[in-house]
Amino acid sequence: MGTNGPVLALSGGVGGAKLALGLYRILPPDTLTIVANTGDDFEHLGLSISPDLDTLLYTLSGQSNVELGWGRQGETWTFMAALEKLGGESWFRLGDGDLATHVERTRRLAAGEPLSAIIDDFRRRFDIAARLLPMSDDKVRTRLDTDSGWLDFQDYFVRLRCEPVVRRLAFAGSDAARLHPDFIATLADPALRAVVVCPSNPFISIDPILAVPGVRDALRHSRASVVAVSPIIGGKAVKGPTAKMMEELGLPVDAASVARYYRDFLDVYVADEVDRDAVSGLDLPVVLASTLMVTLGDREALARTALAAADRVRQ
Amino acid sequence: MGTNGPVLALSGGVGGAKLALGLYRILPPDTLTIVANTGDDFEHLGLSISPDLDTLLYTLSGQSNVELGWGRQGETWTFMAALEKLGGESWFRLGDGDLATHVERTRRLAAGEPLSAIIDDFRRRFDIAARLLPMSDDKVRTRLDTDSGWLDFQDYFVRLRCEPVVRRLAFAGSDAARLHPDFIATLADPALRAVVVCPSNPFISIDPILAVPGVRDALRHSRASVVAVSPIIGGKAVKGPTAKMMEELGLPVDAASVARYYRDFLDVYVADEVDRDAVSGLDLPVVLASTLMVTLGDREALARTALAAADRVRQ
Repeated sequence: MGTNGPVLALSGGVGGAKLALGLYRILPPDTLTIVANTGDDFEHLGLSISPDLDTLLYTLSGQSNVELGWGRQGETWTFMAALEKLGGESWFRLGDGDLATHVERTRRLAAGEPLSAIIDDFRRRFDIAARLLPMSDDKVRTRLDTDSGWLDFQDYFVRLRCEPVVRRLAFAGSDAARLHPDFIATLADPALRAVVVCPSNPFISIDPILAVPGVRDALRHSRASVVAVSPIIGGKAVKGPTAKMMEELGLPVDAASVARYYRDFLDVYVADEVDRDAVSGLDLPVVLASTLMVTLGDREALARTALAAADRVRQ
Repeated sequence: MGTNGPVLALSGGVGGAKLALGLYRILPPDTLTIVANTGDDFEHLGLSISPDLDTLLYTLSGQSNVELGWGRQGETWTFMAALEKLGGESWFRLGDGDLATHVERTRRLAAGEPLSAIIDDFRRRFDIAARLLPMSDDKVRTRLDTDSGWLDFQDYFVRLRCEPVVRRLAFAGSDAARLHPDFIATLADPALRAVVVCPSNPFISIDPILAVPGVRDALRHSRASVVAVSPIIGGKAVKGPTAKMMEELGLPVDAASVARYYRDFLDVYVADEVDRDAVSGLDLPVVLASTLMVTLGDREALARTALAAADRVRQ
């Protein structure tokens, strides 16, 4: 096993996609498989929407909207304005170009194609050489038990802007969901170099993947080393409700908490240099680095750091 | 029955909508009911599309795209470009704003609302004071027997650009379709002033309406006078395949043919001044006028002419 073996990345949306892009740029592209969370997929306006998969599609193909921080570059909003005029639901913003992804996915799902086959076709059409996989072709839906009752993910995340206090999460359908065969094969590949847990929200982006039967065990027993990059820098999340949720779930809001959360399968952890003290008590190898990814160079550098950390602990 | 009674217009798409707009502008708006052809409705990309109803919505609300001759003003095309990139079907052009109408209609149909209730809500949101009705809430689909075999309407009309030679037409579902109750009530209203058959294609725009059981009899027995405006000027159709189809169906391509085609229920016919000779042999009252509608004034003038013609024969 050299440093040319396959690499598996687990990713949620925007934050995870940044590191996934870094990995994609520094690795021979056909050695990278990215498994995306589909727990925040949902049906809206009759359309099947897969936010994390689409963020990865747009990010890896260089089409992500850098100004907005989500969606597609060069996006227009004529649909949304017209929908509002018709009294349609407008709390979830769908750009005109983004809508094509949803309409075409919905049409192909209705025709009986599995999500993974559709995404595999989409990523080829977007000239993405890496594999991009949903964790499962079966439906898994993240739900949150909050002080406003049980909420569907996008109700919590977008409509209510993460304001409700979260008590616990559930991943409806996960018990019966089957891992995608290529995900199983990649996890079982004796040549697998590393599994990279991207700096996504552990509770809503990574946990849904871990909830599919077989993933956690495979990670525990993998001969490849499992490296996670901290989504927490200096006690804060770069984006999204990670820190708020940690507090609500009774976890210390620091970089070490995330490593402990993954401890049963984690081999090495990459935390930010500012969190040297916070992670000093961890009982696993830790690599300190600058983990805030602003430039493309930052993404590539952090990807190199994560892979080097994985390579080191495997030897 | 004065000249303030209700008026019923039967219309297809672009050509019919021009006269419908003229009627809308000269009548007290709440006296006008427009019944639209739904025979060219279809399902595309998983969306329920009603081209003639939508053309009427956009035309009556002043949102029609005057440059294109179809669709919405201020339209953008980001969806279509993105869909092509994903390998989706692109032969039917869907603008970004237009798409909102289809997505919202499809969602509400799936939720169990009848098409008529959805369109009634849409026209109110577009500030259209006239009633706008599909001929039926039941599905009727125009199909064409051609030298390329049986074709669905939009396959013939858009994808194949009306190129196949038409032998006959069928309106699948029409036998079992039920007229909308408000259409029945308007037809039966003793105060009904006139029924205006707009200058739409008789075979693909008006015939599907006439094919729904009850319409033709109601028109024959209506106390209101039925006036049709010729869609043929000087042996040519202003737009679309009307003249080509007349020829293929073995009818003389002139204004008189259309009057004869409607003869069993028609009380008076409005033809263009250039067709004086062509219509001279007709055995019903004919009013000659300038029927080419270029300006808004043309639409209003022709609407006044049609109503005056109807009023005259009723006395």
